[in-house]
Amino acid sequence: MKLLITGGGGFLGARLARTLLARGELAGKRIEHVVLTDIAPPPADLVADARVEARTGPLLAQTEALKTEAFDGVFHLASAVSGECEADFQLGMSSNLDSTRALLDALRHRVEKGGAAPTRMVFSSSVAVFGPDPAVPFPGIVADDTLPTPQTSYGTQKLICEHLIADYTRKGFIDGRAARLMTVTVRPGRPNGAASSFFSGIIREPLAGVESICPVSPDVSHPMSSPTYTVDGLITVFEASREAFVGRTALNLPGLNVRVADMLDALEEVAGPAVRARVRFERDERIAGIVANWPTGSTAARAARLGLHPHKNFAEIIRQYIEDCRKAPDAEQTSLKGLA
Amino acid sequence: MKLLITGGGGFLGARLARTLLARGELAGKRIEHVVLTDIAPPPADLVADARVEARTGPLLAQTEALKTEAFDGVFHLASAVSGECEADFQLGMSSNLDSTRALLDALRHRVEKGGAAPTRMVFSSSVAVFGPDPAVPFPGIVADDTLPTPQTSYGTQKLICEHLIADYTRKGFIDGRAARLMTVTVRPGRPNGAASSFFSGIIREPLAGVESICPVSPDVSHPMSSPTYTVDGLITVFEASREAFVGRTALNLPGLNVRVADMLDALEEVAGPAVRARVRFERDERIAGIVANWPTGSTAARAARLGLHPHKNFAEIIRQYIEDCRKAPDAEQTSLKGLA
Repeated sequence: MKLLITGGGGFLGARLARTLLARGELAGKRIEHVVLTDIAPPPADLVADARVEARTGPLLAQTEALKTEAFDGVFHLASAVSGECEADFQLGMSSNLDSTRALLDALRHRVEKGGAAPTRMVFSSSVAVFGPDPAVPFPGIVADDTLPTPQTSYGTQKLICEHLIADYTRKGFIDGRAARLMTVTVRPGRPNGAASSFFSGIIREPLAGVESICPVSPDVSHPMSSPTYTVDGLITVFEASREAFVGRTALNLPGLNVRVADMLDALEEVAGPAVRARVRFERDERIAGIVANWPTGSTAARAARLGLHPHKNFAEIIRQYIEDCRKAPDAEQTSLKGLA
Repeated sequence: MKLLITGGGGFLGARLARTLLARGELAGKRIEHVVLTDIAPPPADLVADARVEARTGPLLAQTEALKTEAFDGVFHLASAVSGECEADFQLGMSSNLDSTRALLDALRHRVEKGGAAPTRMVFSSSVAVFGPDPAVPFPGIVADDTLPTPQTSYGTQKLICEHLIADYTRKGFIDGRAARLMTVTVRPGRPNGAASSFFSGIIREPLAGVESICPVSPDVSHPMSSPTYTVDGLITVFEASREAFVGRTALNLPGLNVRVADMLDALEEVAGPAVRARVRFERDERIAGIVANWPTGSTAARAARLGLHPHKNFAEIIRQYIEDCRKAPDAEQTSLKGLA
């Protein structure tokens, strides 16, 4: 089978590609060809795989050609991130909304003009579709059927794409499924400008032997998932039958609802008190204010019925991160220098 | 002040224009100029008003010019209807989504490039954003905060526009408010292809002395509003302060939750048994199937806080229709020949 992964050069897209290539099959079919599109080329290990074809450049410039190219499955992960979308409204609308629409229309074209069967497609939506609007009571812990009232352009664009995918699916243009990713922790690499950056930073930097500042209170709670469970969730949603997915509404992927204090307790449990001591609390009102608008947790009843569950505790997530670093320290730009 | 009404040549747009011109003011300012855009020209009485300027043609072709034209308020009513959007997917996406986006971007351009204040804008969304998806329990009676899972392209497009308007408002590009219209009854004119056509037909045709077929059971219940209350609702939402509107989420306009049987009882009360006897029940499985997916009623708590309420009973709606017909029989193409 031939797969398309948009955003295939990014952190999650590359991990998804690696996982799929290592499995060698998806939904019972052998994976022969994986096309990775992204604005940057994918990591070297993926480029070296004979089954991988990298197409570098904006997705929007590539969708016209997709009208005449058959894929057996699409994972649509390409996205401008939350901070970028707030800073550059036009960029977010173009990268997240116009690109998705153009991709959907390319797949529709294959059905309407080419007589093809609807292509199965998984879309990575986000817990960012949820937020507190004064008009609506906000539950804090968001369920599959919580009313999304996004408070960022990123969340708005993700929600709009969820509904486009539902309608294109209803019309038979695609076989689409939208899955909302929880905050992915621990991300490797450097801190970035995202307000959520510290959730990874307070684990990653201490393990690398570097001090880290936590800008919010230890009581802050949020739903999180590891990169591995997130990728597994996307694959499970792809492999689910339409009946098992149930309906066309987006579902929540599982998240572990965890407080910052619990994360640090887990860090101490796994790596010892000296590592934990590298985290210092220094409140940043801007970040604390943003995070105060985020869900404090989530439930994922529909994902559970697909066999997907959150991690049992945050120590599991840290141990998985350490294992990942040991397997691929260079590719992931990670360090465990702080670990005794 | 200078107003823009998109869809200003249509039934509701023309009624809104007439109501505004008769009032002479909106939000405390004198109305000097009303621009009506539509694919067809507005009714003659509007064209004859010196304050009215009609611009005929697709909205999408007119939005570029709107970038440099200042309006003190916009009522965005232009829309392809539900049946059209199901029959021609591309038409719906273009007329309902692309046109709205282009209008929003023209208003954004004035703020970002022209330094203008955000233009106040009311968007006519629809009860069609609601529908039953197997993934989500459907309450039947839909509230302001019921989760919309639209089951038509029209409903999907309206919901997407609600979220665009909320985000453009959050960013300060517009001062937008989305109001969900209930099914507007009694519409004048001829029966049309809409599945909801009979809701008006079973009142309008008997009053005109013509037989009418009701394709669903007398037990079918649905939220309805008169043209007058619908127009009043749009004006009230425009005039509300941002604080009074509360948040940026769309609100339900009031609807009277009424069964077909209640509608016919009201018809008999107002017009006598001979008029009611002109309605015959003949089940149409296609229409009954579509209507079975519609909300059986609605609540409108936020609209109530703005002072908006549904009609007390359906007889009120019928009496208002009769009064409308007597005032403007030609313009509205209506007949009361069946009324003794």
